[in-house]
Amino acid sequence: MPDKIYRINMTDLKVTNEEVPEQWKGLGGRGLTSTIVAQEVKPTCHPLGKYNKLVFAPGLLSGTTCANSGRLSAGAKSPLTGGIKECNAGGTAAANFARLGIKVLIIDGLPEKDTFYSLKVDKNGVTIKEETELGGKGNYEVVKNLTEKLGKKIGIISMGPVGEMRLAAANISVRTRDDYIRSLGRGGLGAVMGSKKIKYITIDDSDTPGVPIADPKKFKAAGKIFAKALAEHPVSGGALKNYGTDVLVNILNEAGGLPTKNFRYGKFAGHEKISGETMHDTIAGRSGKVSHGCHTGCVIQCSQVYNDKDQKYMTSGFEYETIWAFGADCCIDDLDVIAQADHLMDDIGVDSIETGVMIGVAMEAGIIPFGDGQGMLGLLKEIGSGTPLGRILGCGAAAVGKAYGITRVPVVKNQGIPAYDPRSVKGIGITYATSPMGADHTAGYTIATNILKVGGFVDPLKKEGQIELSRNLQIATAFIDSTGLCIFVAFPIIDIPAGFTAMVDMVNARFGISLTADDITKLGKQILRTEHEFNLAAGFTNKNDRLPEFFEDPVLPHNAVWDFTDEEIDSFWNF
Amino acid sequence: MPDKIYRINMTDLKVTNEEVPEQWKGLGGRGLTSTIVAQEVKPTCHPLGKYNKLVFAPGLLSGTTCANSGRLSAGAKSPLTGGIKECNAGGTAAANFARLGIKVLIIDGLPEKDTFYSLKVDKNGVTIKEETELGGKGNYEVVKNLTEKLGKKIGIISMGPVGEMRLAAANISVRTRDDYIRSLGRGGLGAVMGSKKIKYITIDDSDTPGVPIADPKKFKAAGKIFAKALAEHPVSGGALKNYGTDVLVNILNEAGGLPTKNFRYGKFAGHEKISGETMHDTIAGRSGKVSHGCHTGCVIQCSQVYNDKDQKYMTSGFEYETIWAFGADCCIDDLDVIAQADHLMDDIGVDSIETGVMIGVAMEAGIIPFGDGQGMLGLLKEIGSGTPLGRILGCGAAAVGKAYGITRVPVVKNQGIPAYDPRSVKGIGITYATSPMGADHTAGYTIATNILKVGGFVDPLKKEGQIELSRNLQIATAFIDSTGLCIFVAFPIIDIPAGFTAMVDMVNARFGISLTADDITKLGKQILRTEHEFNLAAGFTNKNDRLPEFFEDPVLPHNAVWDFTDEEIDSFWNF
Repeated sequence: MPDKIYRINMTDLKVTNEEVPEQWKGLGGRGLTSTIVAQEVKPTCHPLGKYNKLVFAPGLLSGTTCANSGRLSAGAKSPLTGGIKECNAGGTAAANFARLGIKVLIIDGLPEKDTFYSLKVDKNGVTIKEETELGGKGNYEVVKNLTEKLGKKIGIISMGPVGEMRLAAANISVRTRDDYIRSLGRGGLGAVMGSKKIKYITIDDSDTPGVPIADPKKFKAAGKIFAKALAEHPVSGGALKNYGTDVLVNILNEAGGLPTKNFRYGKFAGHEKISGETMHDTIAGRSGKVSHGCHTGCVIQCSQVYNDKDQKYMTSGFEYETIWAFGADCCIDDLDVIAQADHLMDDIGVDSIETGVMIGVAMEAGIIPFGDGQGMLGLLKEIGSGTPLGRILGCGAAAVGKAYGITRVPVVKNQGIPAYDPRSVKGIGITYATSPMGADHTAGYTIATNILKVGGFVDPLKKEGQIELSRNLQIATAFIDSTGLCIFVAFPIIDIPAGFTAMVDMVNARFGISLTADDITKLGKQILRTEHEFNLAAGFTNKNDRLPEFFEDPVLPHNAVWDFTDEEIDSFWNF
Repeated sequence: MPDKIYRINMTDLKVTNEEVPEQWKGLGGRGLTSTIVAQEVKPTCHPLGKYNKLVFAPGLLSGTTCANSGRLSAGAKSPLTGGIKECNAGGTAAANFARLGIKVLIIDGLPEKDTFYSLKVDKNGVTIKEETELGGKGNYEVVKNLTEKLGKKIGIISMGPVGEMRLAAANISVRTRDDYIRSLGRGGLGAVMGSKKIKYITIDDSDTPGVPIADPKKFKAAGKIFAKALAEHPVSGGALKNYGTDVLVNILNEAGGLPTKNFRYGKFAGHEKISGETMHDTIAGRSGKVSHGCHTGCVIQCSQVYNDKDQKYMTSGFEYETIWAFGADCCIDDLDVIAQADHLMDDIGVDSIETGVMIGVAMEAGIIPFGDGQGMLGLLKEIGSGTPLGRILGCGAAAVGKAYGITRVPVVKNQGIPAYDPRSVKGIGITYATSPMGADHTAGYTIATNILKVGGFVDPLKKEGQIELSRNLQIATAFIDSTGLCIFVAFPIIDIPAGFTAMVDMVNARFGISLTADDITKLGKQILRTEHEFNLAAGFTNKNDRLPEFFEDPVLPHNAVWDFTDEEIDSFWNF
């Protein structure tokens, strides 16, 4: 049974399916969502209007036994950036889709009726139903309610109240197998889901034959080598498992690249209190889980289960970027308060990076003082309630900057800049500036080479080599994001040649094809160019590839400034 | 004594003056502000940051005896559109500047100290002072306070609380000789003044010799012909004097081009209650002034003094666009309520067109119901108080659309579309789409030819001839906006050849030069191109020259749609 495309038209509430056209056959995940958005969405359309489409696609390796292949991609024109957007997250949905033989779900149109809908996806296809019970509910309740009704194996994609309000920082939640929540976080795709009034999608892969493998023997052999590489690399096999991504707090603080007090400084006095080491000990002392996978088949286990003092679940998927944003950037040195924030954001359905950066801007604007953890929690509740203040905050950092008339607003393409100061880690600044996704560390994670010395070392404080580094990583990432693999496989495949070969072999064995390393680079370049061209057609220019002017000011401890010329930045696209 | 340029640096609080460079000598008003902004402001800068400049310039004929020459231009990079901006308004300031020999005031930098400042401009130059008394006060109080202190002849430019908050719909007020307020309205230049913390500027032209005229005899003769043309034309000499610009309510309603209920319909059932005829009778019955000039030397007298039922002053400069926005667009058919709104907006310092369009969007979002006049006044008070809701509203129509996740938002380049439906008056749609100023009817007022049959007739419902019409008017307007003349002189100079010649003769006689009609077209084109190029350098593309997608839907009574192709719109720039 060949893979299918499902089209859900929310205007006339009809579902159709079709064969995968030849040119989309070798694409999955981001490669597929970006290609479809570029081909089918009018670049100048209103992101919340009838011409935008919301696209969900598992990766090329999703649903297989390949380690760490459980990422689901979502794509659309972004309500936050106005450009093309792809996010990916763990959870069970990607594997569920793949096992159902669904290569992509394309949702278009807008319903006329003022009600919510749900999509039920199973072996019989896709069914649209009116949803009268769960509108207005938080994601935790949606997941609990549906899991109770439909069983533990169900895949769930849902939006919270912030998506319902169509605010530009709204995210989309994906259920993990243990009822926790992972997020299709950035770029406000939850608002697109809200505009289409789809409260949730359930994916039931019961009674499906599983994903066909063209060369099972080759696949199995490559899979072993790949998993071994993941386990052996010091980053993917050690640090991340023990301390989660939050291991980066102390590392970035030491490097002077931990943005502090709305990007004023590169070091945070309270770093120890929010570090991965502290998180590890806190979790261990409260019977939480130090290591946890966000999807079946994850061997890196960078997630965790973080309990409160009474050993009651608080949050999981508690990431460095979130902890940095509310911690160093907002000067809150209390991990429990940040964990509460993380839980609340997952529940109301709002991107934790955008929201953390936004709170830093809200503190800059004087709405609450820097360091005010309880005030911060109050602001998050305002977002969930949709008060006027909550609506400003729920539209992200740039919206707060405008409503309060301030200029120290760390965004690129209107999207909040994540957890690495671009002045003292210059490679990531190039990624922020040039990525078609807006400021996004995952698009080309130069921290690997600038800080962690994966794939060699490029001095983070010097301009030399950064553009090439960011370009190579953005190209490679565009491919990895198409496989369904977690981005952290990049560490071992960069450093361990056999790991890279094994990844390519698995894709080839899955489809009976013979991609080479060159083909992969070619595909990565093609995806990046497709995204860039969409943005240009939407009205972006090289002026959108710039950091805010306050990065001209030096940042301690290195007195580093953002000193790339426009010509240097623009040379990124020479490939 | 040759004219001078004054530069006010708000970073180091220093004032310098310099001679006018050769290339700026033939420029005034908009021609000068746009040239300076284009030459001196970094196009990609933050509009509220240190790199933006706020420029005030009287027109080429300001301060002379020429009729209707009292308009003052202000220019900057706009916080609302992100592009170049010029506004002009009446009041006494333009003539005051001209008589002081000040060709332009260029304000740059940002003060570090958290306090307001004032600028005192007189025969001794410009003095910067800290202002501790009037911060937070409304424009009416500022004008009253300063007039009491400094006398009736003083020119005053001030910003209200909305400018202090640096919100994107903030305007700048200019005192009239009778203590009323005229507005440099559109594009949020009040927020730029707020960023530079200048609460007000006083201009005292005592003991100045007046404006030198190179050929007084020729000037006087031409002035007479010009004034006669203004008086004789049926629009400038009749309709406007009797009914104000509000005469257009019935005319546009009849034409089916009066945008109603947030641009849903082209006719408003309550049009009679808000018409110019009704306003005339209301004013007459309450001992107001049916006719009134916004500046000395105005012979058109389209302004008025509108009193309440107790014959107490409510507002003046009560324009059609304001009355349309709060009236038809918000479905409020009570002229007294709209007059209250007008007074309040002048006082807090917010653009009445942007704000009216914004209220329509706020009603669309369900914040208050359509037609709710008291609710509307409540929202305006929120803006003045700077509540979170007020801050959203004070950032204009597009900001409300974003905070409430709605798509029916009538803006171009983020600026609210004024009082003429672009589907049923297609020429003005081309002006909205292409003007470097964002949606702005004054930039190329095709209503003249589409509706009023001035300068011939181009059928408003057909595409033919609209691009040329808008182009010719935008070019001519760029010149008129440079003279200090009110845009309404366009009616007689289009229809009465001697009026046009007289205008050119006055400029020539003032400076001892010999401009031809061709030179004027050339200058108009040059100004438009300069503005367009600034926007392109700021990151605009032809995608910014588009109307919102909801204008694809037909509007009654003509079932007209916006049907220009992208190529047709882009051909505007072929000159």
